Amino acid sequence: MPRLIPLTSPDDPRIDAYRVIKERDLVGRGGRFIVEGRTVLDVALSTRNRFALESLLLSESRIEALGPLLAGAPDDLPIYTASQSILDGITGFHIHRGLLGVGLRGALPSMAELIAALPESALVVVPLGIANHDNVGGIMRNAAAFGADAALFDFASCDPLYRKAIRVSVGGSLIVPFAREGSAPALLDLLTAAGFELLALSPAGATVLGEVKPARRTALLLGAEGPGLPETILARTRTVRIPMSAGFDSLNVATTSGIALHALACGR
Amino acid sequence: MPRLIPLTSPDDPRIDAYRVIKERDLVGRGGRFIVEGRTVLDVALSTRNRFALESLLLSESRIEALGPLLAGAPDDLPIYTASQSILDGITGFHIHRGLLGVGLRGALPSMAELIAALPESALVVVPLGIANHDNVGGIMRNAAAFGADAALFDFASCDPLYRKAIRVSVGGSLIVPFAREGSAPALLDLLTAAGFELLALSPAGATVLGEVKPARRTALLLGAEGPGLPETILARTRTVRIPMSAGFDSLNVATTSGIALHALACGR
Repeated sequence: MPRLIPLTSPDDPRIDAYRVIKERDLVGRGGRFIVEGRTVLDVALSTRNRFALESLLLSESRIEALGPLLAGAPDDLPIYTASQSILDGITGFHIHRGLLGVGLRGALPSMAELIAALPESALVVVPLGIANHDNVGGIMRNAAAFGADAALFDFASCDPLYRKAIRVSVGGSLIVPFAREGSAPALLDLLTAAGFELLALSPAGATVLGEVKPARRTALLLGAEGPGLPETILARTRTVRIPMSAGFDSLNVATTSGIALHALACGR
Repeated sequence: MPRLIPLTSPDDPRIDAYRVIKERDLVGRGGRFIVEGRTVLDVALSTRNRFALESLLLSESRIEALGPLLAGAPDDLPIYTASQSILDGITGFHIHRGLLGVGLRGALPSMAELIAALPESALVVVPLGIANHDNVGGIMRNAAAFGADAALFDFASCDPLYRKAIRVSVGGSLIVPFAREGSAPALLDLLTAAGFELLALSPAGATVLGEVKPARRTALLLGAEGPGLPETILARTRTVRIPMSAGFDSLNVATTSGIALHALACGR
């Protein structure tokens, strides 16, 4: 059981990492990320081989309820506790369910390293230009639920370790190996060279999703809601459609990832 | 083409319906709802046989871009226009993309009337205890996309005509016939009497989703994330599971509705 460290001042320098005004600064310069809430902390404790936790910060009122979970934390993990009034003095974001943690990004693999490390039989999801944190989090949640081997983001997509993306992913961002790097065409070059069949979801796709037999190595490409994937990308892929009502062919991109990953995972 | 009515004061009584502080009051007492943004307005104009529009309110800066859409609006629809500073004076919620509309709920069918009016072959979605507006909106979007014949909510679920639910549904809330009434057991009684097979999604479901052949009349039951459907409900249904990773069997309920409606719609 790690020790609890009661704080007596909101200005305590040991919790500087929680005093985030601009999350981009935290992610970019500090190499850290924020986890929130019990469910995500549970995942974070089980994925410590990928991301170390630096500390936790929790409301005194939650100590008892979180006891069993905290008992499984490493002995040397500092757990700061504070009254709600002190927690309220830590500005910048809402404290979700009285529990926050700081994780360390560490040295993430490059895109090429991640692709090189994939198993012979692999299913990867490839979000391109998806800048919405909810959607990136939803995609990571679905990728974890359906056992995708990796999530490969172009740099126009947002970071799956953004606080809100982690929360929406319910910890999936900490489970699914990912990289986020370069342009969409460069990413397609890497995947093609690695023997992946490229499937692209599009309302005008040539093949119905239910008829796709996934190849040994399959990459599922997803574009942003609204514009979708550009023609230059679609032209390099096998296009797949999800049959929908004639008058309303509109799905959320995270939902789309769930439908397609379910179908492809069942077909493996 | 309806006429444009420029406003010169944020206190103009003709736009009182937009001056919403508590949305519950608007929904409950006024029998109105709010639509936001171009895509939803497009749906609202095409579903005027179900819900009449009372008026629109838009930013002067959007008049030109919205011209083609507005040209298709009924001639007697008042369209108020205002400068951004006047729009900013209308408080209570953020004006999404410079375009708002007020719709009239009218006399919605009761649960029994809606079920009695369903076709012989029918697929309905039944959200139980789903109080999150995003999830209700996501379910309505998927119900519209996959042509569900109705969405039947227990009263513990939130209203699909809540502003945010309509926005997240991208207008699906205006397309799919719905009722929201009574308790879950009472709703199951009505569906059973109407000859519906009750399918309930649950992580411990007896049948894998991909093996379900939908009955002529199928009702898909969804419970809230976290607790899921109670045992008393599951005991009255055929339970169905979506296969997931052993270590992460967690899906968002709206995503779940998309996966299941896609599978059942393909199987009809």
